[in-house]
Amino acid sequence: MSQRIKCIVSYDGSNFYGFQKQVDKRTVQGEIEKCLSIIQKEPTKIIASGRTDAAVHAYGQVFHFDTNLTIKEENWKKAINSLLPNDIYIKEVEIAPSDFHARYSVKKKEYRYYLTTAEYDPLRRNYTSFLKQEVDIDKMREALKHFEGTHDFSSFTPQDNKIKDKVRTIYETHLNVYDQDLEFIFIGNGFLQYQVRIMMGLIIEIGLGKKEINLIDYLFEHHERFKVEYTAPPQGLYLWKVYY
Amino acid sequence: MSQRIKCIVSYDGSNFYGFQKQVDKRTVQGEIEKCLSIIQKEPTKIIASGRTDAAVHAYGQVFHFDTNLTIKEENWKKAINSLLPNDIYIKEVEIAPSDFHARYSVKKKEYRYYLTTAEYDPLRRNYTSFLKQEVDIDKMREALKHFEGTHDFSSFTPQDNKIKDKVRTIYETHLNVYDQDLEFIFIGNGFLQYQVRIMMGLIIEIGLGKKEINLIDYLFEHHERFKVEYTAPPQGLYLWKVYY
Repeated sequence: MSQRIKCIVSYDGSNFYGFQKQVDKRTVQGEIEKCLSIIQKEPTKIIASGRTDAAVHAYGQVFHFDTNLTIKEENWKKAINSLLPNDIYIKEVEIAPSDFHARYSVKKKEYRYYLTTAEYDPLRRNYTSFLKQEVDIDKMREALKHFEGTHDFSSFTPQDNKIKDKVRTIYETHLNVYDQDLEFIFIGNGFLQYQVRIMMGLIIEIGLGKKEINLIDYLFEHHERFKVEYTAPPQGLYLWKVYY
Repeated sequence: MSQRIKCIVSYDGSNFYGFQKQVDKRTVQGEIEKCLSIIQKEPTKIIASGRTDAAVHAYGQVFHFDTNLTIKEENWKKAINSLLPNDIYIKEVEIAPSDFHARYSVKKKEYRYYLTTAEYDPLRRNYTSFLKQEVDIDKMREALKHFEGTHDFSSFTPQDNKIKDKVRTIYETHLNVYDQDLEFIFIGNGFLQYQVRIMMGLIIEIGLGKKEINLIDYLFEHHERFKVEYTAPPQGLYLWKVYY
């Protein structure tokens, strides 16, 4: 009898062309499917909660796959991790109900974005975004709060994004300040491609005094993607948790 | 008139074959000399406080070079950093007295070693050493303290190390515990090749209960390198500061 397996996975996005499988490119999905296909002795596909872009990290990406093998959860974890490259790690394996779906069952997603005003540090270059100028943290916090609620995020995703419904709800946002390091938290029912990085780009520009906060409301009404000139770099972005 | 320039440099050792220049290999010295030779328009050599091995990091490596150019300290810093790859960063540039020597003027060196008992995290794989078993932290602290003082460290460096005088003094050691992360600090007048990693290897084995603390004293007296079977991995090691 076939079983559905749910996995929580963390990865360092630095050396991947993103999550989604691509021919001849090193991707997270490609590496995981390679390992599972070895264990299962047949081509195995996984379905994840969604994609992440190149250089974006994950602490709590979730995927599922189906198996006819009878292996205990802890042994699945050991078996997969023993075959994975060292920049991907399975944190949890769980035998899931057969109607569990890593993508369609998602209730909420949490992304975090890390930004620092500290001097450049080569050891953190892949894990945070560096800001050279002074920023107004109160203004950034106010800008962040403006994104809460249900809005049409068409201005915050590439214009060629083919998804029709661009309305999403952001339930919660938080900004935590640790000395010179800023942690932005976004919890929502889903996020469009590049949405967090484009929102962060605007929040940063508002913090630098280059843009005004009322531009956010304007952009919810008018779909003028070009008015957000800056997309924050991927290195600071983490898919933190997927809620089911 | 020629000026001597002192630089403090940080680097992520992950993608280097160590500090010291080698033909056809990517090294920290090689990259820095390439940049300085461009700025100076002539082949430029640097002299560092010492080498670091492949995958070892630095927050405070120091080197010097000589120049006939008249450039302000802050502009040297900008010029070099603008040419360096993003895993090396010059933190400070200082016009030094002509008798300053990055290697011979060293008074003390500080190394730090990071170890964690937390579960494997792919995002930290290059920056800390992971320990899967439980360790006795009090025993590790006691072992660490045994290394303080002036000792013959012949047992703590490869047997083919050609340096004759293997007596070194460790002035201070500290062990700081942050939740599951352990920070080991060593301050001494100098360290032999692999010395910190071999000392750490023995400290870890003592923490695991595989070796006894009195083996340290034995090894100071008897030069039996083979009795320390474990050398701690380079990823956890940082050249933290050089004191002049």
